[in-house]
Amino acid sequence: MRRTLPDQFPGQLLAEPNPSLPLFHTNLMNFAPSTPYVSVRWSGDALGTLELLDQTLLPDRSEMIQCADEAQLHEAIVALRVRGAPAIGIAAAYGVVLALQPLVREKAPIEQAARCAKDACAYLATSRPTAVNLFWALDRMQRLIDRNANLASAVELGNLLLREARNIHDEDRRMCHAIGEYGASLFEPNWGIVTHCNTGGLATAEFGTALAAILTAHYQSKNIHVFADETRPLLQGARLTMWELQQHGVPSTLICDSMAPQVMREGRAQAAIVGADRITARGDTANKIGTYGLAIAAKYHDIPFFVAAPSSTFDLSLIDGHEIPIEQRKPTEITNAFGRQTAPENIHVYNPAFDVTPAELITAIITEKGIIHPVSEENIRRTLASSTQ
Amino acid sequence: MRRTLPDQFPGQLLAEPNPSLPLFHTNLMNFAPSTPYVSVRWSGDALGTLELLDQTLLPDRSEMIQCADEAQLHEAIVALRVRGAPAIGIAAAYGVVLALQPLVREKAPIEQAARCAKDACAYLATSRPTAVNLFWALDRMQRLIDRNANLASAVELGNLLLREARNIHDEDRRMCHAIGEYGASLFEPNWGIVTHCNTGGLATAEFGTALAAILTAHYQSKNIHVFADETRPLLQGARLTMWELQQHGVPSTLICDSMAPQVMREGRAQAAIVGADRITARGDTANKIGTYGLAIAAKYHDIPFFVAAPSSTFDLSLIDGHEIPIEQRKPTEITNAFGRQTAPENIHVYNPAFDVTPAELITAIITEKGIIHPVSEENIRRTLASSTQ
Repeated sequence: MRRTLPDQFPGQLLAEPNPSLPLFHTNLMNFAPSTPYVSVRWSGDALGTLELLDQTLLPDRSEMIQCADEAQLHEAIVALRVRGAPAIGIAAAYGVVLALQPLVREKAPIEQAARCAKDACAYLATSRPTAVNLFWALDRMQRLIDRNANLASAVELGNLLLREARNIHDEDRRMCHAIGEYGASLFEPNWGIVTHCNTGGLATAEFGTALAAILTAHYQSKNIHVFADETRPLLQGARLTMWELQQHGVPSTLICDSMAPQVMREGRAQAAIVGADRITARGDTANKIGTYGLAIAAKYHDIPFFVAAPSSTFDLSLIDGHEIPIEQRKPTEITNAFGRQTAPENIHVYNPAFDVTPAELITAIITEKGIIHPVSEENIRRTLASSTQ
Repeated sequence: MRRTLPDQFPGQLLAEPNPSLPLFHTNLMNFAPSTPYVSVRWSGDALGTLELLDQTLLPDRSEMIQCADEAQLHEAIVALRVRGAPAIGIAAAYGVVLALQPLVREKAPIEQAARCAKDACAYLATSRPTAVNLFWALDRMQRLIDRNANLASAVELGNLLLREARNIHDEDRRMCHAIGEYGASLFEPNWGIVTHCNTGGLATAEFGTALAAILTAHYQSKNIHVFADETRPLLQGARLTMWELQQHGVPSTLICDSMAPQVMREGRAQAAIVGADRITARGDTANKIGTYGLAIAAKYHDIPFFVAAPSSTFDLSLIDGHEIPIEQRKPTEITNAFGRQTAPENIHVYNPAFDVTPAELITAIITEKGIIHPVSEENIRRTLASSTQ
């Protein structure tokens, strides 16, 4: 498993974003062998079925559950059977189609159908409080309903809404694969790569963000080996990322978060890649707690540290990472995480959900619009303003 | 809770080891208010009782168990009711006295008593395979038995053996308090201090090593605040260190290992201090996995990183830390900790028990013989050769 470190980081792969680069391989949608699982699946026409991979059963069991109506979808979102902002948005869009099905069957008049679909949007928006993609997707469905008040019946509206939901789904899938292509171009063959938390297909339409780069490199036969941090306190790395890597057959090893520096010291890792929850205009990046320490360790070992995220993750209204509010979560996530109490009663616990990695620790940020390197406000604004995608 | 970082690290406190410094305060043994718990307690004369704090019940319950004979002590060591190399050595020494009690009561002849005591040494040495202090303490008891074959009876031998066990116990207690005094001298008032794993009185006679510095500073009213890493995978920080800090009333906060860098970034911590399992002649230090990443984070934030360990921890036969063998432990410590499976079946897991922190990341090493700063082979050899203690 031991590998020697490369002489130097291959800088030529980290060029300025090149707008002339093709965003997708022409065979992109067929690039990966049929993906072994999907977070969300719609089958058939507007009277078709919506299935979700029930993530609460992972890693023990991989089971698709069917949502008969919007109430069952609502429960599934609340119960985290489907999770990850993009995946929730996609599921909710299909949920509006699901809600309309009884009226499509009756060929109900358009006024009744539009009211029903809009009620479904409002109802599904109450399922999670903070996932931006949920509101964004439902807004998009609602605008479509408003723009099409003159249709003949529920049947036509159902067809239109399904097409929009499929568009939302496909756009996310393309975004994932574009990030995957750009990200994989930064990995040399035979690299060991550390990753943190879950950034894969479970949280998105397919392939994910940071994990998309890893999966794409794997399917390009780059012979990479992944070290997945377990990601305390909620163990998304152990429970979800290791499961996804196993499904795709990617050689991988689970480690505790505290072991990544030793893995680097032993020459087993040549890069680290993570996702992002929010990125400021200068590139400071909020992500799952533990990201910052991983970035410091990468810097100390002189190995590249990559962030992969869609352009929608940037918040250009903020410059400095200190401005990003950090969510504090409940102490029992740390003291009672494994179904057993593992610390004394009545102690203080500090449980920030995220940390902020300053731009100077980030080698490059990978978006669906290109690779941002070096990470600077100028390069970020230029890449995000580019019309590609 | 937020504190500003000091302008600079107070270098004047980190002088070269000064042999003229008194090793102990004259009132050392009375320095701390009566310690709220002890790992090992002997009461009475050679016919007295041996009690252990049953660490398997922590942090739920704090309960002293009495060992009626050497067989019960053997079981207690095997079952980790008493753990930590120094504490095991102390308990085993008392165990030899315990084994002799039936013959002391009968005033048996010395030949029979000596044979019984030597059998007890051999038997207790089979309780744990690697704790060096166990063999060291039992060797010391055995040499005493051999040197005193001409005593009148079991009664005299029992008294001698109890005195030696009490000496072993007292020497460890003095070592802890000396390290505590030196270590506390490095902490400024109002500092936040990060620590890792368990290095306290549970593992030693009293107060511990790195935790001794923290407890001493606390009893000196320095108003310190401790951030204790939970220490995955076995959570010694959450289960044991937080319990010890609570017993002593030290203001403290539990964090996941991955949170320490964010705690430093937020200005909440001004120093980090850890124990050591083995230290080479140049100062490279093997300690519980996670120590290395903590040291890198301290360096990045320009805060001092201290190692506290008795002089017996040094292995001067090794120079470079790469020479220290790293124990690999079983995968289920990570995948099935605490009675629940938290990762898929059939995955690779890397679980090194220790990592190695290079000397250049260590600001000072605190021993019972003085403070080694800067950390260099010359300073280490000079300090260890000093006759103090």
